[in-house]
Amino acid sequence: MFDRQVSASATVSDQRTEHISGHTERFRKVRKATLGLVKDLSSEDMSLQSMEDASPSKWHLAHTTWFFEELILKPFASNYSCFNDHFNYLFNSYYEAIGDRHPRPLRGMLSRPSSDDVIDYRHHVDAAMTQLLSGIDSADSAETSQQVLARTELGCHHEMQHQELLLTDQLHAFSQHPLLPRWAPELPLSKPHSGTTASAMRWVGHAGGILSFGADTANESATPARAKGFAYDCEGPRHQRLLEPFKIASRPVTNQEWLEFMADDGYRNPEFWLSDGWAAVKSADWNAPLHWRQDGNRWLRFTPHGVRELDPLEHVCHISYFEADAFARWAGARLPDEFEWEAVAADQPLEGRFQESGIWLPERSEHDAGSGIESLFGSVWEWTRSAFAAYPRFRPLDGALAEYNGKFMCGQFVLRGGAFTSPIDLIRPTYRNFFYPHQRWQATGLRLAKDD
Amino acid sequence: MFDRQVSASATVSDQRTEHISGHTERFRKVRKATLGLVKDLSSEDMSLQSMEDASPSKWHLAHTTWFFEELILKPFASNYSCFNDHFNYLFNSYYEAIGDRHPRPLRGMLSRPSSDDVIDYRHHVDAAMTQLLSGIDSADSAETSQQVLARTELGCHHEMQHQELLLTDQLHAFSQHPLLPRWAPELPLSKPHSGTTASAMRWVGHAGGILSFGADTANESATPARAKGFAYDCEGPRHQRLLEPFKIASRPVTNQEWLEFMADDGYRNPEFWLSDGWAAVKSADWNAPLHWRQDGNRWLRFTPHGVRELDPLEHVCHISYFEADAFARWAGARLPDEFEWEAVAADQPLEGRFQESGIWLPERSEHDAGSGIESLFGSVWEWTRSAFAAYPRFRPLDGALAEYNGKFMCGQFVLRGGAFTSPIDLIRPTYRNFFYPHQRWQATGLRLAKDD
Amino acid sequence: MFDRQVSASATVSDQRTEHISGHTERFRKVRKATLGLVKDLSSEDMSLQSMEDASPSKWHLAHTTWFFEELILKPFASNYSCFNDHFNYLFNSYYEAIGDRHPRPLRGMLSRPSSDDVIDYRHHVDAAMTQLLSGIDSADSAETSQQVLARTELGCHHEMQHQELLLTDQLHAFSQHPLLPRWAPELPLSKPHSGTTASAMRWVGHAGGILSFGADTANESATPARAKGFAYDCEGPRHQRLLEPFKIASRPVTNQEWLEFMADDGYRNPEFWLSDGWAAVKSADWNAPLHWRQDGNRWLRFTPHGVRELDPLEHVCHISYFEADAFARWAGARLPDEFEWEAVAADQPLEGRFQESGIWLPERSEHDAGSGIESLFGSVWEWTRSAFAAYPRFRPLDGALAEYNGKFMCGQFVLRGGAFTSPIDLIRPTYRNFFYPHQRWQATGLRLAKDD
Amino acid sequence: MFDRQVSASATVSDQRTEHISGHTERFRKVRKATLGLVKDLSSEDMSLQSMEDASPSKWHLAHTTWFFEELILKPFASNYSCFNDHFNYLFNSYYEAIGDRHPRPLRGMLSRPSSDDVIDYRHHVDAAMTQLLSGIDSADSAETSQQVLARTELGCHHEMQHQELLLTDQLHAFSQHPLLPRWAPELPLSKPHSGTTASAMRWVGHAGGILSFGADTANESATPARAKGFAYDCEGPRHQRLLEPFKIASRPVTNQEWLEFMADDGYRNPEFWLSDGWAAVKSADWNAPLHWRQDGNRWLRFTPHGVRELDPLEHVCHISYFEADAFARWAGARLPDEFEWEAVAADQPLEGRFQESGIWLPERSEHDAGSGIESLFGSVWEWTRSAFAAYPRFRPLDGALAEYNGKFMCGQFVLRGGAFTSPIDLIRPTYRNFFYPHQRWQATGLRLAKDD
Repeated sequence: MFDRQVSASATVSDQRTEHISGHTERFRKVRKATLGLVKDLSSEDMSLQSMEDASPSKWHLAHTTWFFEELILKPFASNYSCFNDHFNYLFNSYYEAIGDRHPRPLRGMLSRPSSDDVIDYRHHVDAAMTQLLSGIDSADSAETSQQVLARTELGCHHEMQHQELLLTDQLHAFSQHPLLPRWAPELPLSKPHSGTTASAMRWVGHAGGILSFGADTANESATPARAKGFAYDCEGPRHQRLLEPFKIASRPVTNQEWLEFMADDGYRNPEFWLSDGWAAVKSADWNAPLHWRQDGNRWLRFTPHGVRELDPLEHVCHISYFEADAFARWAGARLPDEFEWEAVAADQPLEGRFQESGIWLPERSEHDAGSGIESLFGSVWEWTRSAFAAYPRFRPLDGALAEYNGKFMCGQFVLRGGAFTSPIDLIRPTYRNFFYPHQRWQATGLRLAKDD
Repeated sequence: MFDRQVSASATVSDQRTEHISGHTERFRKVRKATLGLVKDLSSEDMSLQSMEDASPSKWHLAHTTWFFEELILKPFASNYSCFNDHFNYLFNSYYEAIGDRHPRPLRGMLSRPSSDDVIDYRHHVDAAMTQLLSGIDSADSAETSQQVLARTELGCHHEMQHQELLLTDQLHAFSQHPLLPRWAPELPLSKPHSGTTASAMRWVGHAGGILSFGADTANESATPARAKGFAYDCEGPRHQRLLEPFKIASRPVTNQEWLEFMADDGYRNPEFWLSDGWAAVKSADWNAPLHWRQDGNRWLRFTPHGVRELDPLEHVCHISYFEADAFARWAGARLPDEFEWEAVAADQPLEGRFQESGIWLPERSEHDAGSGIESLFGSVWEWTRSAFAAYPRFRPLDGALAEYNGKFMCGQFVLRGGAFTSPIDLIRPTYRNFFYPHQRWQATGLRLAKDD
Repeated sequence: MFDRQVSASATVSDQRTEHISGHTERFRKVRKATLGLVKDLSSEDMSLQSMEDASPSKWHLAHTTWFFEELILKPFASNYSCFNDHFNYLFNSYYEAIGDRHPRPLRGMLSRPSSDDVIDYRHHVDAAMTQLLSGIDSADSAETSQQVLARTELGCHHEMQHQELLLTDQLHAFSQHPLLPRWAPELPLSKPHSGTTASAMRWVGHAGGILSFGADTANESATPARAKGFAYDCEGPRHQRLLEPFKIASRPVTNQEWLEFMADDGYRNPEFWLSDGWAAVKSADWNAPLHWRQDGNRWLRFTPHGVRELDPLEHVCHISYFEADAFARWAGARLPDEFEWEAVAADQPLEGRFQESGIWLPERSEHDAGSGIESLFGSVWEWTRSAFAAYPRFRPLDGALAEYNGKFMCGQFVLRGGAFTSPIDLIRPTYRNFFYPHQRWQATGLRLAKDD
Repeated sequence: MFDRQVSASATVSDQRTEHISGHTERFRKVRKATLGLVKDLSSEDMSLQSMEDASPSKWHLAHTTWFFEELILKPFASNYSCFNDHFNYLFNSYYEAIGDRHPRPLRGMLSRPSSDDVIDYRHHVDAAMTQLLSGIDSADSAETSQQVLARTELGCHHEMQHQELLLTDQLHAFSQHPLLPRWAPELPLSKPHSGTTASAMRWVGHAGGILSFGADTANESATPARAKGFAYDCEGPRHQRLLEPFKIASRPVTNQEWLEFMADDGYRNPEFWLSDGWAAVKSADWNAPLHWRQDGNRWLRFTPHGVRELDPLEHVCHISYFEADAFARWAGARLPDEFEWEAVAADQPLEGRFQESGIWLPERSEHDAGSGIESLFGSVWEWTRSAFAAYPRFRPLDGALAEYNGKFMCGQFVLRGGAFTSPIDLIRPTYRNFFYPHQRWQATGLRLAKDD
């Protein structure tokens, strides 16, 4: 009995260690990946804030660290010594419940702490987090442990979201520089361009029906997060919906197709546009996707890999909801809603071009994909026509974390599938990204749909 | 046989005449009601434009007339003589397909035509319309007739929408005048205020299920509009949805309850608010509903009947979506979605306080309503948490009328049930009104809901 | 002796009566002239406010009346019965010392009082003023009488200033109307245009020296205003300045010359422009004077007499200081300063085209004017390069009237000579008008100058 | 003869060398001083741009270098190799004649070139300039040499102006940082504060008369710049003016006096303010000078030496023209005009606290200064009531340099005397600084004046 008990206990302990070390491993991996993104940026590069929507890369480095410090170390690590008392004010993003914070439009004014200090801050917090995670099974009660693990997981996902923002914010900042700096390796153009056409876009039917959607978040707090896989509160609860039959495009829209839209007065004919979209076209003077630049008769694109000739086979990227919607109307189609997208995604493997590839460009649709669905995950975020809203019986997380998603459920549209800017671990079929319909500095594209 | 044919023909003809005269009757009634709304306004009053969202009453009088002239008389009345060639430019609202138009923010600059000229314009168009409607069964082909009748009906509903806007726009214009002019008869306050409490708010359950929603608009163009009753394109097609069980409040929220929200720091505590809502509170410095005015310790309300002491039993009115949503969160509840509202409305009689009552104030909930639902129709528009979006298989109307609703499906929220400002004939259970979440110059209130 | 004394006394008394009746006469004349300006305007026309700088004509009618009521009748007419207690709030313009007032940008919201009520208000105040002025030598002490007379004179000049604003504000309001309403009689074009050239512009030299400038306002309060002729506080005190020799153009710049400036990239070449002026050109997209309209290859001008073909011989009008300054630099000249202008004006007869002519257009320079100076008074206001500033020992008027001119001595430039919009009695050689350098809705032109 | 000629030639040559080496010396001194100002700033600190009016310190380092490269090396140094072809675009400030340039509000976006690259750029240009200056008497013709020397002198003065801007821009940038970084050494407070009063302010009379003002710039281009001492084009030509008798205060206004103004509702009573000033107070919510911070009952000031307790004896600093003018009106005085100031300055020694002192604070007026004038030079810039305008017969420099001062003669007011932020070599009695009346981020104070 004794042996057995010991043995049983040992087994549990081993499992727990493994469990914990999995968490530590993931934590380290995510933290390391963030630093990898800035390795070719100078401290001056990392300090740029080009618009209110964007933040300096240095701020992303610090804010993601603040998240672990404020939500895990301060409440749960008894001996934790705060790195700098001012950082809670400087690096809180939008959590009203946690207190006042530095105004968002002034993030670019934070020349201090320096980027070196921020790296030190990261190491300080990483060390404390590692220690906390390693000791979690001895002193703390089970419930606290669960909470630390759950919040660590949340913090890792939070940081992956910021990795994506860091890439697109830095690209936007550099796009304001007249010399258009390149910070990722130069990449060859895919050849030959002329004479090659994209894979034909096919319509793939779906029968609809009463289906289940979303993540099972209902009992989140009671069980280890890992058991069912991580999901944000807004991805649940899992629930049923009645879906009508529809058709969805086999692949995202390409630059070539976008050029046809432009050639057909896409940006000049109000009949394609939502009323607010048309107002945006006129006030912002849009005539092409963001980061496109005209050079005589040809189009170029500014990317992290520098200015590149426009690749007609690449999926179109950096478009607003307004543009996606107008294109769809022009094409005699519509955008899918988020449930149509999720119904299709349920059967697809989670693979595609993500941030880890180091190729920070959308995929190309050169070869025919047979009868299947192409590039549903990765490549470009796909705008859906679903307003970001609560699922039935939605319950936000408790405390300050209630502000994570719920307070943004107004005026934004859902995007699905991830992009070349997304870490692969961030993405799953139920993941809901959301942005305002005029925003286009993210890696946003579209896939068409139709009523059946 | 011959006789019988004749007889049959006569019968058809009789029915048609009756049918047509019904249209003429409705047309006349609607047109007359509009003039009734301005009978106590001076030409200067009718020229005011207090903000970009609002239009002068004179403009409403002219624009509703333009609708009949441009969409019916010009295409269908062969001998129609245009009243003034410039009016198409001056009084087009937002139909891009019909051509350029006077910029919306400059509608208040149109001192010419005078209000007298606009009344003449109305008479000119009314006469031509009456003639067209009376002669509709002789010269025109059946299909044309159907189109005239359908567009006349649409024009009447369009004008009823503008009647409502005229009331709220004029109220807003007068609210910018330091002397707060009254233009409807003074009304006694409901007595006694002290010691009276509102009817208790009860929760009424609904079982949910797979239910049908919306209007049957699918075959609209093929059949006489009247057959199934009028509905806008965005109200259909009729379709099924899966609804989860829920509870809905027996009546709208009252001023008394709103005062409690205010007393509990409703306008000062960010935790109740959507992120965009909180930004609106701070930038617009909201601390009470629109048209409320503080006078020492008591609150007054500016209404068409003048400045009145705040009636605690009245349904709260002139609140934005942001405020409605924050109140619901404060109250531990939520707003209903538009399908929950419609499911409840299916069983309710279409009665309540509408514009025709001449009492341009929300209803009071003084007496207990038994087990039923109170004030679902009329009184105040009820914000739902549904973004205004297309129903499955939604098809906009053809031509310029495609712009009627479809191009606004972005960023707005649905309101249901009508208000004291709405003509009763405008309202039906499937009617979807929509406004931006920051707008509050309409007669907008709220009813709470809850998950079951 | 006795008789003679009596006789002398009688003479004095007669003079006083005459003196007083002269005031009454002037008061009546000015008041009547104001109404003459609006006789062809509807109440809706009179209610328009097209920009913050401008006011509705109705407001001008009321505000000029308020001036007499507030500054003369209320303090000096013992039995005066206020017409409407609210009008002090509604029709105060900018006198902080007199109390709160209706915000300037909302003057167009005052549909009430109606224009008829405002006319009644005028009659009420006119009657009280006439009575006060007629009784001034009996009951009141001499000092009070002097004050009433001085303020009445000030009030008349104040009203003449507003007559000018009324004309230009109404023109601006109508310029926002797509149909460009005409409200003064149509006038024939001066013929023939082709083949006629303007009078040659000649340079007229001035020797400079130590000269006296300004009006003798030093002892204003101690003596009857009429004795030395009326002047505003900012026109004095009379003082000496050292002037260097200079040359001044014989006439204002014409439309023909302005077209040459435009043809030579006047609006496209930054080297002609002040830094702030160039910013204004780009942000407001100026490419011609205000109220010019291009119709294919020809230019038209919108005027109170309707849209007219551009007359190349007319003096250019409705230009900003920035434009005047740029033109002068382009022409290898400069603007005169206000003392150069005044030194020249000292020898010139006060004649020209003023408001009373009913021809609300600038003069033409068709015939050669011999060796003299043309159109120094009337026609168009002439921008000088003098910032509006205090003369040495400047003392503002007492009390609320201190705000009349002194508080505007910042950022504005002086204009001299009056225009077709000015009542002739408003103008004298020392009169200083002032506007911001970007403003151009007044009847503003320019005359060139040069160092000698 | 030959010997003598040689000898004479040698003498000339020696003189010229000395002359040139004087220029080189000054050039080196100025260039070195600029680097001294940033020695305690990080590259991130140097990249901050906190408002459109201000520029990053790194930009100042580069732009002053660009001036030498573009206006001297490119046109005059035959073998000069441009450091980087893009820098003309990046670092042109406002010279329209030199071509397009990076938009001013985006100067903070220039993370590249790095601050290290900019230092290299400085060294590159310094080497080329030194070589050019050393070789100036051999290859180049005399006229070219004169132009190089004149432009070098201009470039040094230009750089000294930017040294001052660098200090105030950096202070403003840090003032947007919630932690208010200090970058100059901490300095002790002057003790004791309590019980010490400022030197009494006395009125010093001046008899006025016909006097000469300004610098003799008339023949600038024909003679070596150094002969008469450097002056900007706008400081001349020297000319006569008639000045009336006046009195001027013996010293600038102190913080103590400013506190009295504040205590007497200085920021709340419109009667003290210009109309535009009052609008600025209300819109910007001013209630104290810039960089003042309230801490309970006491006031602190943010300075380059950190946050310091307000020293009541220091001259008040960082006030706008509007505030200076309001204070003067409150005090029953007025601001001097720039000629009154210059008439007084003609007799004063050019000494005071300048940038080289390393004490970047205004002077204190603790000890009585006898009968003299205190702190006329240095300490704080003194607002005058003179609009910045051309002197009689003003001629701007030729070419692009015409834009140096002339195009700013609109809407700005002249300041005189320099401040603790100014290099002493920048300042002379005729020096005219100018800013807009709302601007207050420079080291601006005031000295009172009065009519005699």
